[in-house]
Amino acid sequence: MPRLAPGYDTLGRTKDEGEKLDIGKLRADTPGCDRVVHLNNAGAALPARPVIDAVTGHLELESLIGGYEAADRAAAELERFYDATADLIGAERDEIAYVENATRAWDMAFYSIPFRAGDRILTTTSEYPSNTIPYQQLVERRGVRVDVVPDDGDGQISLDALEAELAKGDVRLVSLNHVPTHNGLINPAAEVGRLCRAANVLYLLDACQSVGQLRVDVGEIGCDMLSATGRKFLRGPRGTGFLYVRRPILHTLEPPFLDLHAASWTESGTYEMRDDARRFENWERYIAGQIGLGVAVDQAAAIGLEAIEERVTSLAAGLREALAERPGVTVLDRGRRRSALVTFTLDGHDPAALKLSLREKGINVSVTNGGQQRYDVRAAPAAVRASVHYYNTEEELESFLAALPAP
Amino acid sequence: MPRLAPGYDTLGRTKDEGEKLDIGKLRADTPGCDRVVHLNNAGAALPARPVIDAVTGHLELESLIGGYEAADRAAAELERFYDATADLIGAERDEIAYVENATRAWDMAFYSIPFRAGDRILTTTSEYPSNTIPYQQLVERRGVRVDVVPDDGDGQISLDALEAELAKGDVRLVSLNHVPTHNGLINPAAEVGRLCRAANVLYLLDACQSVGQLRVDVGEIGCDMLSATGRKFLRGPRGTGFLYVRRPILHTLEPPFLDLHAASWTESGTYEMRDDARRFENWERYIAGQIGLGVAVDQAAAIGLEAIEERVTSLAAGLREALAERPGVTVLDRGRRRSALVTFTLDGHDPAALKLSLREKGINVSVTNGGQQRYDVRAAPAAVRASVHYYNTEEELESFLAALPAP
Repeated sequence: MPRLAPGYDTLGRTKDEGEKLDIGKLRADTPGCDRVVHLNNAGAALPARPVIDAVTGHLELESLIGGYEAADRAAAELERFYDATADLIGAERDEIAYVENATRAWDMAFYSIPFRAGDRILTTTSEYPSNTIPYQQLVERRGVRVDVVPDDGDGQISLDALEAELAKGDVRLVSLNHVPTHNGLINPAAEVGRLCRAANVLYLLDACQSVGQLRVDVGEIGCDMLSATGRKFLRGPRGTGFLYVRRPILHTLEPPFLDLHAASWTESGTYEMRDDARRFENWERYIAGQIGLGVAVDQAAAIGLEAIEERVTSLAAGLREALAERPGVTVLDRGRRRSALVTFTLDGHDPAALKLSLREKGINVSVTNGGQQRYDVRAAPAAVRASVHYYNTEEELESFLAALPAP
Repeated sequence: MPRLAPGYDTLGRTKDEGEKLDIGKLRADTPGCDRVVHLNNAGAALPARPVIDAVTGHLELESLIGGYEAADRAAAELERFYDATADLIGAERDEIAYVENATRAWDMAFYSIPFRAGDRILTTTSEYPSNTIPYQQLVERRGVRVDVVPDDGDGQISLDALEAELAKGDVRLVSLNHVPTHNGLINPAAEVGRLCRAANVLYLLDACQSVGQLRVDVGEIGCDMLSATGRKFLRGPRGTGFLYVRRPILHTLEPPFLDLHAASWTESGTYEMRDDARRFENWERYIAGQIGLGVAVDQAAAIGLEAIEERVTSLAAGLREALAERPGVTVLDRGRRRSALVTFTLDGHDPAALKLSLREKGINVSVTNGGQQRYDVRAAPAAVRASVHYYNTEEELESFLAALPAP
């Protein structure tokens, strides 16, 4: 059986990481680590005990003293979410909105943009397929145009091609994801940001798979809007997410939905939107989830995103190498810089069936659906996706490799 | 001290209800009943133990085996939500969408309607103020017109005035709430439905405060769309809600947001929406909440909405009578038919301060904000709202009355 990247201690720490991440303690704080080999972190990661306790503790409090009354008592924790999230990504607290998931966070940003007929949207081949339907909806409803910027042969967006497209004019928005769901790469978000700033064009980054996995700083990236989820690499609750909107463009965006939290009536007989990113929120929400997400964000920051990024990309690189050595395995990942998401096929085995058989052995992976990839002609119809987090160990990856059947 | 409606036994049951509702058992199943006198059920009701256990149990399962893996295991409970909710309101399961709260459920319906400039929206004086901002947004964005149908002097929508407005033409939508948040009345939803059907006009009912409190049957009401929340009279989790859309109009509505759950790509190069109400959903969600809401709905159905309606309206009527006898109290409720929401002011006492002082005594009420009421010129700037549920007892209402200060 192939060894993975050498030099791990028994807790799964490399020599370099040993001082940064106490994997044993992090695993001990994660009840699921005793139960499963969880390689579906790009689906939903295993939460740590403090996050679970924050959520269930608040739900219990709601049941004992009432939902509104519990929210009042948790006012500080609810506000903490904004500070923690802003700190994590280098934003200000008034640039953060709590939204129930990354899809709706992205929607609230995208549908806020006052597109006109003829406006162009630039995206790239590896765009998240769920975002491509909204593009098409605005093509049909408002006459915008969508141009898919080619990748550079390695899979990530071609910066030369992007620059050339920007120079053609009429671009209202550059919109892409940071870490695609299906092909292991990391798009050069900051380089895209520089081109967008130079061209004075809006830039929406779908960071659903990157926040909590990579160091993400909105200032360095230069995006105007960024959407993220709680449940993936941040290890927060399902049904939570957030939206970042850069202060100077806030006033140019009117959310597609408004309620009396996002806006209020004025004396002059119309409504006035909030002056901060909470104009993208609605009042009623999964309060316990917001508290739990705040705890998860604080935890990620305490561990440190640099250390997390180093560990997950190193674990993933080791896994890719080990997989590539196995007969019958094709590793599908592309990109010069690669993420924690490892995708592959195994000859003679249907990915969906393989996923289920692994699950019976206590190993969680997921399957990518290339059939709905709109712009990526190279996407496999289906592949196994094994996505690692920092709490995964070399031993777990070896047990995963050992559980794979022969081709 | 005034007695409330006479004839209750020690468990708070009336003679008639005694056989229908075992209040003692229902209270024993509700941990909060030991802790607070909860008269903020129109805010968020106290959940029953089976609902809390369903939610926290699923959250624990997610933490042990993974979020996606837990959802797969809970597939039957997740599907049960659709059957339970459809049964509760007399709909079919494919007419139900799970949405994260009533605000967004209403938004998904309202913003799906293909309004044209000049289209009229009819609503009424007691419309929920948070809905009036979306009306104004479409006035400014799409040139629709909003006409407020007068109430009939008792507060509920005037059916004569509605009929006259419908006869004038150009009406695209009749939109109102079933139970307003601030004035105790119940709008004649079914009579409105008959007029809408006769005029062949869309009818959107905001049932946020009525589902779980009153018998609500979409067939009898004749509405095309109905939005509801989990956390209020259904006693479900915060951050849950649902939307009903009548089958025959589904194909006329394109949701304002679409993802790869709501739609999919077709061979012909465009997207195709789901053929059922789940086109109004998005894929990622508070899964534990959906399971908990299904349990809450099943529980409401098992208790029986007729019995619930009878008890809550009777408790509220008794409370109104007792309040009206107290010096300095003004009961503000209007309407021929009255809900579980009792609103009043007490001379010399600011409602917000009164709420807080009651809370210190373990009694939960809320405060209405008349300042944001857009169409109800009679709305008090602020009032105390005491909203009862079936688990409240006469003894609790008496302790609430005893805790009110002198004027």
